[in-house]
Amino acid sequence: MNQPPTRPSATEATDALRAAGADFHHRGWSLGTSSNYSAVLGRDPLDLLVTVSGKHKGRLSADDFVHVGADGKPAAGDNKKSSAETMLHVVLAEAAGAGAVLHTHSVWGTLLSDRYGDAGGWAIEGYEMLKGLDGITTHQSAKYIEVFPNTQDIPTLAQQVRGRLEDDADPLRHGFLIRKHGLYAWGEDIDAARRHIEVLEFLFECEGRRLAWGGESVRL
Amino acid sequence: MNQPPTRPSATEATDALRAAGADFHHRGWSLGTSSNYSAVLGRDPLDLLVTVSGKHKGRLSADDFVHVGADGKPAAGDNKKSSAETMLHVVLAEAAGAGAVLHTHSVWGTLLSDRYGDAGGWAIEGYEMLKGLDGITTHQSAKYIEVFPNTQDIPTLAQQVRGRLEDDADPLRHGFLIRKHGLYAWGEDIDAARRHIEVLEFLFECEGRRLAWGGESVRL
Amino acid sequence: MNQPPTRPSATEATDALRAAGADFHHRGWSLGTSSNYSAVLGRDPLDLLVTVSGKHKGRLSADDFVHVGADGKPAAGDNKKSSAETMLHVVLAEAAGAGAVLHTHSVWGTLLSDRYGDAGGWAIEGYEMLKGLDGITTHQSAKYIEVFPNTQDIPTLAQQVRGRLEDDADPLRHGFLIRKHGLYAWGEDIDAARRHIEVLEFLFECEGRRLAWGGESVRL
Amino acid sequence: MNQPPTRPSATEATDALRAAGADFHHRGWSLGTSSNYSAVLGRDPLDLLVTVSGKHKGRLSADDFVHVGADGKPAAGDNKKSSAETMLHVVLAEAAGAGAVLHTHSVWGTLLSDRYGDAGGWAIEGYEMLKGLDGITTHQSAKYIEVFPNTQDIPTLAQQVRGRLEDDADPLRHGFLIRKHGLYAWGEDIDAARRHIEVLEFLFECEGRRLAWGGESVRL
Repeated sequence: MNQPPTRPSATEATDALRAAGADFHHRGWSLGTSSNYSAVLGRDPLDLLVTVSGKHKGRLSADDFVHVGADGKPAAGDNKKSSAETMLHVVLAEAAGAGAVLHTHSVWGTLLSDRYGDAGGWAIEGYEMLKGLDGITTHQSAKYIEVFPNTQDIPTLAQQVRGRLEDDADPLRHGFLIRKHGLYAWGEDIDAARRHIEVLEFLFECEGRRLAWGGESVRL
Repeated sequence: MNQPPTRPSATEATDALRAAGADFHHRGWSLGTSSNYSAVLGRDPLDLLVTVSGKHKGRLSADDFVHVGADGKPAAGDNKKSSAETMLHVVLAEAAGAGAVLHTHSVWGTLLSDRYGDAGGWAIEGYEMLKGLDGITTHQSAKYIEVFPNTQDIPTLAQQVRGRLEDDADPLRHGFLIRKHGLYAWGEDIDAARRHIEVLEFLFECEGRRLAWGGESVRL
Repeated sequence: MNQPPTRPSATEATDALRAAGADFHHRGWSLGTSSNYSAVLGRDPLDLLVTVSGKHKGRLSADDFVHVGADGKPAAGDNKKSSAETMLHVVLAEAAGAGAVLHTHSVWGTLLSDRYGDAGGWAIEGYEMLKGLDGITTHQSAKYIEVFPNTQDIPTLAQQVRGRLEDDADPLRHGFLIRKHGLYAWGEDIDAARRHIEVLEFLFECEGRRLAWGGESVRL
Repeated sequence: MNQPPTRPSATEATDALRAAGADFHHRGWSLGTSSNYSAVLGRDPLDLLVTVSGKHKGRLSADDFVHVGADGKPAAGDNKKSSAETMLHVVLAEAAGAGAVLHTHSVWGTLLSDRYGDAGGWAIEGYEMLKGLDGITTHQSAKYIEVFPNTQDIPTLAQQVRGRLEDDADPLRHGFLIRKHGLYAWGEDIDAARRHIEVLEFLFECEGRRLAWGGESVRL
């Protein structure tokens, strides 16, 4: 992120998020009306395009998006309802510098988030696929997957996440899990966020199947 | 269901059920000629559009549907044969107030229905995805999945189901399994019923894979 | 099969087998150039349309089929090479009265065929999905899945299969497995054969996952 | 490879590799920006068309390919960046006589490469599907899957692979795994390479699921 990325137009963002939704729904990562997606269209002030609450993610229409500002509220004149989890998107857009945020609910992510929920996370290490995460340049890396407790209290969770994003010593990067809930991942643009989702979901499936073989957990 | 939902036209219902069938077949939830789907087009008297018996669910044509009334029999002049399980659809349309009923046969649903068949069911709890079921507003819920014995005697099963739907103390909601057979789920319209199928099938896969890890069952 | 089914034209059969191939390849049941498919276009003499050897089953072209007669040899003037396993198709067309034969290689079929190879087969019982097999009218049935040893000697295997098809006391029906090889299934027409493949593959996946849970085998 | 195969045009190769990418991404074998693909367009000097580094494999555009020569460097005037692993493609094109090389990252390949990484490989034997590998004419074969240690040092790995390809006593054929990384497979043309990927991935899934049942490993 050395130079500010070009922001997509609302149409470009809508098209790209609809395509992501169709693919994720197809893979079983966004079934029902779970999941929500967003992209930053502008900053100062923040103009975040986010999926409207309760829409089927495999069949998003151009009308299933709403503009919100830094307060997570729909822009004036927009009477569509944004997702209850919109403040998480806002925090990631602000404190992580994300250009796009994708939230998915996969079977493996859900199961692993519960298995490692008490420990607060676990490490995935030694996989070449880790190099698909921005800033990781060797497979000889361990990526710690942080698991947050699930809650209905999104403002409090958003503050916790902001704290971890702004932790200079060890800032939260790429994505995190919420227990028995799902994955948030982000990147500098929609393509990067989608890549992070694919990489993390691939690694979750590897870990899930390895454990089904009787493999041992890696904890840092 | 505070206000009566708008009823779809026969064409709208046919299109939506064909799309659901194509998706469910693709996912392996409606293989062979298993499964049947219905939507309420009118009430007083009941006009239920239901899939014709024995059709491939991945390639339903506009002609693969039949209108039936409250007796589960094809409307006058319609010589197509409705599914043997039509009376379950009628009971759900009447006693559950369903606007649509979807019946699927998935691998995980089939296996779990047998595992918990003797116990009569099991509880799924603590998953965020539960909030995709109408009326569930927190993941701190336990959804009991009821399993009915399989039978060739559909009228008797339909009466049992009606009894459970009309049990004011603890009415059957969203869906149920029939042992080694499959899932019935319903909702106020086709979108809601499809969402309930997706949510329940996702949860079945979570439970199935958790058990493959050696996880324990939750019984209420 | 009370009245002779209408035979498809070569174009109809080609289209239907190409669609089956695309779907089976997609599901991972016909990867590589494994599998072969056929349909009966005429009898007396037999006119069997069968896939040409070594073609990718997800992308069959209209030209990837060859006509063979009762000797399993291409019709005069047709210089395309039929599959090495053509004689199995011929035997099934003749002795089972099949209008179509589909041969697939799935992961679960392959694994189960090896697990039960020494025993010669195993029983699948009590599943509603069994009613998708012609002539089975109740789930209270046990379908014995016969496993033949794999061999390069197709004529001998074809004779063994013919013997089992003509065994009046307990004729082979619907389909069988070849060890570490795959499934042959057939029906009175292409739709019926495809239904039998889907039903059997669904049941194989149920059995395979049940065993992964630690379930026990059922032997008759 | 008795007679030199016809080389594809750049357009033909691009189209075929894009189709392979779409299919592999769909199956979860090329998620994120993992994987890279190449095809030989000419020899003397080598003209190898290879995917540009870091592109999403499910949505390759015609512009996402670069021509490289025997030194693995982009042809003069081409300022696109080829994959870091390009030298592996060059070595396979030269020392294996490959007309196309496909590199995928699947869950099962990744897990098996780690399980058998210390041993340096394992044997897959007795499967009919083995006959989908060029030169294997009976299922009574054992295919040893070689696993190379993962490394950032691609030139050294490329030399190791070249050594094994040129080992006259027991040359490396069809494909190999890199530990916790993925599969390289090749063939005389794009269709053959794609077939080898499909066959090997099918066999990996069989082996992975067999082990999940508690099956034993076969080592030679």
